[in-house]
Amino acid sequence: MHEENTSFKLKKIGVIKTPYMDNAPYQPVEEDKGKFCIVFDDKYVEGLAKLEKFRYIYVIYYLDRAREETSMIVNPAWVDNVEVGVFASRSPDRPNPIGLSVVRIKEITDNKIFTSGLDVFDNTPLLDIKPYVKDLDSKKDSNYGWIEDLKGKMEHLFLHIKGIPH
Amino acid sequence: MHEENTSFKLKKIGVIKTPYMDNAPYQPVEEDKGKFCIVFDDKYVEGLAKLEKFRYIYVIYYLDRAREETSMIVNPAWVDNVEVGVFASRSPDRPNPIGLSVVRIKEITDNKIFTSGLDVFDNTPLLDIKPYVKDLDSKKDSNYGWIEDLKGKMEHLFLHIKGIPH
Repeated sequence: MHEENTSFKLKKIGVIKTPYMDNAPYQPVEEDKGKFCIVFDDKYVEGLAKLEKFRYIYVIYYLDRAREETSMIVNPAWVDNVEVGVFASRSPDRPNPIGLSVVRIKEITDNKIFTSGLDVFDNTPLLDIKPYVKDLDSKKDSNYGWIEDLKGKMEHLFLHIKGIPH
Repeated sequence: MHEENTSFKLKKIGVIKTPYMDNAPYQPVEEDKGKFCIVFDDKYVEGLAKLEKFRYIYVIYYLDRAREETSMIVNPAWVDNVEVGVFASRSPDRPNPIGLSVVRIKEITDNKIFTSGLDVFDNTPLLDIKPYVKDLDSKKDSNYGWIEDLKGKMEHLFLHIKGIPH
C-alpha cells in the first residue's frame, strides 16, 4: 500500500507574454495582432527540440489571477442568464486553476515560442507544453455542447467568446 | 509589486478508473473495450451540470507514477532510435507531470463520467475536466510533427502509439 497523495506541487517552467494586462479574451483569438510569446526558463530549452515540426501545441498554465473561492455553477461571462457546471465551462475560476489553450506555432527561437493569440494575462506562469497531434487531438465529430441550445445565437456568441469586436 | 510564485499546489478532485494496473497504452484507444470511468469526489458533482451535452472532454490528471528525474530529451517508447525534446513529446516523464487526454463521453451518472479509452493507470488522480469545444479545439490543419519524418512508418507507428495489437 502506498500512502495516498491528495495534493500535488507543480513548478513554474517559464512565463507567457501577452498584450493583456487587465483584460483578456475568453478564448484564443487566432488572428489576434498582438505579440504572444512563451518564454522558457533557460534550463528547459533543450526540451524544445523538434517542437517546431508541429503546427499546433497545447499550452498549459497556472491561472494565477483566478479567484480562490470557486463555485460549482458558473455564469459564462459572454452570455446572459445561462448557468452551467464549472466542468462544462472553460471558466478560469475552477477547483484547480489550470488553463489550457490550443495555439499555432509561428516561430521558435532559443527559449521562446512565438504563437497565435493566447487568451491569458501577461506574465502567466507556464506549466507545460505538449504537441497537438492530429490523430489524437483533432475530433471532427466534436460539438459545441450546451452552446448549441442557445438557438440562433451561436455565431454571435463565438464573436464574444473569441473577443472579436462586432 | 506582488511576490512571485514559482510553485503551485493542486488538489485531487477525483480518480480515474481504468483496467490498466501495470501497463497502459501510450495514447487513448477510442475503441478500447475496457471500462473507463472518471469518479469525482462528492463535493464536485454539481460542477458536472450540462457536461453531458458535449461529445468530447479534456481530462487533466496528475501522472503520479511518472519518474521524478526527468530528461529534456526523450526516446518515445513506440519507436526506436528517435530523440526529441520532452515538450515535443507526450512522455509522462516531464518537468510537471500533468497528463492530458481527449476522450468521448459515453454516459454521466451522478459523480461518474464513463468514457472511451483512457491511456492512464487505474486510480490516477484527477485534476480537471474541460469541455472540448469544436471551434476552439478541433484543428483540421493540424499535423503529426516529427512523426511525419519517419517515412512510410506512420500508420504502423500509430498502432503502437494507440496500443492496438497488430
